[in-house]
Amino acid sequence: MAGKDSDKGQKKEGKKEVVHGKKKEVKKETGLGLSYKKDENFGEWYSEVVVSGEMIEYYDISGCYILRPWAMSIWEILQTFFDAEIKKMKIKNSYFPLFVSPAVLQKEKDHVEGFAPEVAWVTKSGESDLEVPIAIRPTSETVMYPYFSKWIRGHRDLPLRLNQWCNVVRWEFSNPTPFIRSREFLWQEGHTAFATKEEADEEVLDILELYRRIYEEFLAVPVSKGKKSELEKFAGGLYTTTVEAFIPNTGRGIQGATSHCLGQNFAKMFEINFENEKGEKAMVWQNSWAYTTRTIGVMIMTHGDDKGLVLPPKVATTQVVVIPVPYKDANTQGIYDACAATVKSLNESGIRAEADFRDNYSPGWKYSHWEMKGVPLRIEIGPKDLANNQVRAVRRDNGAKTDIPVANLVEQVKGVLDSIQQNLFETAKQKREACIQVVKTWDEFTEALNQKKLILAPWCDEEDVEKDVKTRTKGEMGAAKTLCSPFDQPELPEGTLCFASGKPAKKWTYWGRSY
Amino acid sequence: MAGKDSDKGQKKEGKKEVVHGKKKEVKKETGLGLSYKKDENFGEWYSEVVVSGEMIEYYDISGCYILRPWAMSIWEILQTFFDAEIKKMKIKNSYFPLFVSPAVLQKEKDHVEGFAPEVAWVTKSGESDLEVPIAIRPTSETVMYPYFSKWIRGHRDLPLRLNQWCNVVRWEFSNPTPFIRSREFLWQEGHTAFATKEEADEEVLDILELYRRIYEEFLAVPVSKGKKSELEKFAGGLYTTTVEAFIPNTGRGIQGATSHCLGQNFAKMFEINFENEKGEKAMVWQNSWAYTTRTIGVMIMTHGDDKGLVLPPKVATTQVVVIPVPYKDANTQGIYDACAATVKSLNESGIRAEADFRDNYSPGWKYSHWEMKGVPLRIEIGPKDLANNQVRAVRRDNGAKTDIPVANLVEQVKGVLDSIQQNLFETAKQKREACIQVVKTWDEFTEALNQKKLILAPWCDEEDVEKDVKTRTKGEMGAAKTLCSPFDQPELPEGTLCFASGKPAKKWTYWGRSY
Repeated sequence: MAGKDSDKGQKKEGKKEVVHGKKKEVKKETGLGLSYKKDENFGEWYSEVVVSGEMIEYYDISGCYILRPWAMSIWEILQTFFDAEIKKMKIKNSYFPLFVSPAVLQKEKDHVEGFAPEVAWVTKSGESDLEVPIAIRPTSETVMYPYFSKWIRGHRDLPLRLNQWCNVVRWEFSNPTPFIRSREFLWQEGHTAFATKEEADEEVLDILELYRRIYEEFLAVPVSKGKKSELEKFAGGLYTTTVEAFIPNTGRGIQGATSHCLGQNFAKMFEINFENEKGEKAMVWQNSWAYTTRTIGVMIMTHGDDKGLVLPPKVATTQVVVIPVPYKDANTQGIYDACAATVKSLNESGIRAEADFRDNYSPGWKYSHWEMKGVPLRIEIGPKDLANNQVRAVRRDNGAKTDIPVANLVEQVKGVLDSIQQNLFETAKQKREACIQVVKTWDEFTEALNQKKLILAPWCDEEDVEKDVKTRTKGEMGAAKTLCSPFDQPELPEGTLCFASGKPAKKWTYWGRSY
Repeated sequence: MAGKDSDKGQKKEGKKEVVHGKKKEVKKETGLGLSYKKDENFGEWYSEVVVSGEMIEYYDISGCYILRPWAMSIWEILQTFFDAEIKKMKIKNSYFPLFVSPAVLQKEKDHVEGFAPEVAWVTKSGESDLEVPIAIRPTSETVMYPYFSKWIRGHRDLPLRLNQWCNVVRWEFSNPTPFIRSREFLWQEGHTAFATKEEADEEVLDILELYRRIYEEFLAVPVSKGKKSELEKFAGGLYTTTVEAFIPNTGRGIQGATSHCLGQNFAKMFEINFENEKGEKAMVWQNSWAYTTRTIGVMIMTHGDDKGLVLPPKVATTQVVVIPVPYKDANTQGIYDACAATVKSLNESGIRAEADFRDNYSPGWKYSHWEMKGVPLRIEIGPKDLANNQVRAVRRDNGAKTDIPVANLVEQVKGVLDSIQQNLFETAKQKREACIQVVKTWDEFTEALNQKKLILAPWCDEEDVEKDVKTRTKGEMGAAKTLCSPFDQPELPEGTLCFASGKPAKKWTYWGRSY
């Protein structure tokens, strides 16, 4: 990476270090800028920012990535929230094996067709060949449901609601991208069985609402709740609901997380029956739902800028970084003490703050460093601040600077963090809304697609038509497809026609290219 | 499983159900006893109790097991404790890939020799052969250390202290046993690098102390802290410390958890160097440490009895189960209300309590059910209790019954739970100590081994002698080996000779067969 010294202090520091002859260190310390700009070369910018922000390290097996602590801590915050919420719903955690035998994997035909090309197979242990190759779970429907069949006998065994936090493997060959598309990823997968479809339907939406909250409340990423088309629904399921995000820079939709009603398809294949209250044999209704480490990638793509990551305060491990700014002849110890006291006050009131006291880096270098890592708020304390009994706060999202009197520290910092969280969401929402293009004809559709819009179009809801749109839009950038039909439907006046088939439209649907 | 009706209520319930014609349910409801007794057929008893206690379900791939919520919740309690403790030590969580490329796996010779026979290999994805087979991590030293080499440049990058919670795979062929020896298991693995050996040594013991606390304070299982012999230490490491447990019923030692100092062996192979404070190139000192879901198995083996699991209160998801005991003409609603109020009071003061209000099971059936699941304390509320404004508390560990006035409920229940926790530990400790046999000669050694003792013997600490003991004790039951040399060494009078070689003894060492 080229060193882009956007800051005086940083430059100075670099020179000073050269004088000390620490050549290697210098390179590292000054190489703080990003080589690529988000608006100019989004793909390269993303690959660079996930590494420079210390989220990801590229791994020597293609499509696998190392999640560094800076990323992992975000995953843990989301996990803590979601895990507590599902426990309130009486969903229990369990752990099922990584491995699936081929016979079980192949039991549900549509399902296996959907996943088979991406399944990784273990065929050897040590030097010996296994008798039968064993699959690594791409998802756990077929791992779990034979046991659902065993455990569920009567209506009193229902609902059965399990979740697991684990890794899954999908050996994809299309463009691997950190967080967004990787061969191994972390997720939670919920698997539940109910006596009635009504209960299953209700849970699908309860879970989808939690996914919306993860994106909108935690990651400050606006999403649309909606239903997937028949072509895009989960392989083997009845219907799929989704929270769909959109990346304006690439004009691509991205499936944020999905909550599926599996209906009774798997129950049929795996014989998950129960004796109902009337003593009759009945079949369960099932759901499965998951969100993955992809969430973090969507957040980075949405908020990051040319200085690096921008983390929403609710998911930032470090919400506030406090940096001493000593000057010659100033009361350095007093400044350091004020920094320590600031961190202490903030921590005591539940704000995740830390000070950067490293003496081998200049304040300017530290500013750039923590900007790259996306810390929401920086507090600087110099001689003037000390004299005025105040601190200077600088927001990562918009660069705004405020002087905060020490007496109001906690209250005002809380206010600023809330405001950053809100502002990130509002800004992202405005950008997203500016991309939405309502189209009614094929010409409008292709034009909007070329302009990287998030297209909202009236559709006849026929599978063949979607396939046809895919064929007609095939190209270097990938074909367009349905993203979802939003639950929040605009009015569809009688007589509205499908943009693609000219048949009567049944619903408004989001279309676009996607990740 | 044969239904062993040790309880009247249970028998009655069974009959009643037969009258109602629910044949299938009945079988399930009455089949509550264990077919095997712990003292008579330990192996079968264990296999049965993990299933009947709803901890484990056997899986269709040998050596893989399903961890049901009742087991998973214990794992989560241990995880919460340990994760918070290591975060206090500034150890950070990360996630490294499941897969390892063969070149990297084979970099440290001793290490790969130790693990190679058990490595599972992925050779195919979908229908295609991979260019190079890829290993599934049996442990992550070789996964992580190439990146330690990249991230560590100067002394300011040290210490680097990472942990991950994940699954690992060791395709073992010896007797698989739920929790104790499985082909896939869950664990945490810590990997750290320091500038000095002193820091590494200190961390090894800090972590070992956390492992001791997991066993002794949480699982109420007594362990010995000690050092592994050269033969038994971690493949590729410098030295291994361990907490060793012992199962009196089988007379086998079991490695509880290990904290390794890797020295500089891996640093050499993976070139993990740094520039020290004097500007000189130096090599890091490394540790790795792990505990696994085996912990849960050791707990079950230690405390379980012929009625089922016995869970220490600190790790029991449900610490108290409240069971209404209605009688004809009694104030049933009053009893149910009292049960609900009892649960509420207990929950509000942080005790994990729940009521079993199911109306299709008799109180007696419920007693057996919750005994099987090992809930530490049962509270029964019947008409007499209601009249006297009291509840009846029955301990799982020793069956003792007490009447607790409602006014003292929370305080006394807390006291009883503490006492159960303490009693489980003390009882286990006494049993373990009763098994320790000090031997000084080979004859004493073989006799003690036949008597399934935990043998403490003076040893010359020579690898060849340990190998020789292994050879000489080979047999159906497995060979004897060193378990550990306890840190807490009895006095070793000058002139004491090794029990096996007759050479001067260097230390007291635990010997025995092991899991």
